[in-house]
Amino acid sequence: MVSVVSEHQHGYLHRKDDHLERLRRIEGQARGLQRMVEEEQYCIDILTQVSAMTSALQSFSLQLLEEHMNHCVADALGAARSGEASDQAASDQVARDKVAEAVAAITRLVRS
Amino acid sequence: MVSVVSEHQHGYLHRKDDHLERLRRIEGQARGLQRMVEEEQYCIDILTQVSAMTSALQSFSLQLLEEHMNHCVADALGAARSGEASDQAASDQVARDKVAEAVAAITRLVRS
Amino acid sequence: MVSVVSEHQHGYLHRKDDHLERLRRIEGQARGLQRMVEEEQYCIDILTQVSAMTSALQSFSLQLLEEHMNHCVADALGAARSGEASDQAASDQVARDKVAEAVAAITRLVRS
Amino acid sequence: MVSVVSEHQHGYLHRKDDHLERLRRIEGQARGLQRMVEEEQYCIDILTQVSAMTSALQSFSLQLLEEHMNHCVADALGAARSGEASDQAASDQVARDKVAEAVAAITRLVRS
Repeated sequence: MVSVVSEHQHGYLHRKDDHLERLRRIEGQARGLQRMVEEEQYCIDILTQVSAMTSALQSFSLQLLEEHMNHCVADALGAARSGEASDQAASDQVARDKVAEAVAAITRLVRS
Repeated sequence: MVSVVSEHQHGYLHRKDDHLERLRRIEGQARGLQRMVEEEQYCIDILTQVSAMTSALQSFSLQLLEEHMNHCVADALGAARSGEASDQAASDQVARDKVAEAVAAITRLVRS
Repeated sequence: MVSVVSEHQHGYLHRKDDHLERLRRIEGQARGLQRMVEEEQYCIDILTQVSAMTSALQSFSLQLLEEHMNHCVADALGAARSGEASDQAASDQVARDKVAEAVAAITRLVRS
Repeated sequence: MVSVVSEHQHGYLHRKDDHLERLRRIEGQARGLQRMVEEEQYCIDILTQVSAMTSALQSFSLQLLEEHMNHCVADALGAARSGEASDQAASDQVARDKVAEAVAAITRLVRS
């Protein structure tokens, strides 16, 4: 079944509607900023809205990150328990690669 | 004339089209993120796009800030030269209030 | 043996010297900033040094975070393989708590 | 007199003691972190202290920035009022260069 496989791969399916709702609000904020520029509203008020939008994006990314990490850990634990991972050295390396990939994404979030 | 008055007040009219174009691209990025969630793309790839969108928002806000500061300084210098600002203590206070307002906005950008 | 237990708990012992060396450099940057203020160097140059010091702190924290996450995952996998974790629901909850704790720390890094 | 000239150039002399005090506290935080690593304290607790130290650095830099901007504006207004700046185009360019320099520093703060 496609959806099960997808959830297995990406781990955020169960909150998809929540994520889409958040992103639609963020899209609305981008349109609100265009209206403010169009109406030539006060620059500092526009900057305040940009900060609010940036915070909303960060909340979205931190929630996504948490689900991703939970999913990866659950996956690795499931494999370890079922004894699927007969080659422990290989599956340890997979785990380390996943952590490195997550930290690289976190670095981009911290720096952006 | 309304637009002249507005430019005088807010100082970014001459780049309005440029700002609107940037914000439309940012709105497009918000829609792109929705498509990625809809299609259940890989979480780390979505986070990379969030970082790109955050950077675009920051570039927009830093450009707006620079125009705002240039405008405020030009305004204050114009008043000082024309001798309009007969009450120097009062106009110095206005300048300090403008700086404090800008730094408060910068603080929100740094913290968000 | 104390050190083995500690490594088991905190997982960064093997890079302790590296971390201490980084932190000594950061302490040196804090002293360098005092010297710049003492000598009344140009404000913008001081701000540039503050940015460099902030980046060094972030690199330190991201490296620490990666080791922490690697350690937690290795620990959980070890328990799962050895069958120690007879109560799977309980150990899944521990894993989720560890992820939530890490994401809370990441949130503080992103926001600070 | 040296100190008057320096204040004129850099504008933060009157708060020098306050800045040095803040920086000494930040240096103390760097030493506190070394002690935490030395004692192998819990990684997440160390990350919390790094976030606190980063916030302290940002507060310092934002205060320095505000004083710098206040000083630059006061300087420019003084010159404009005294009619020193006979070449308005040149002094307008100086003002724009100062704003651009400040925004470049702010960009480094936002990105670091």
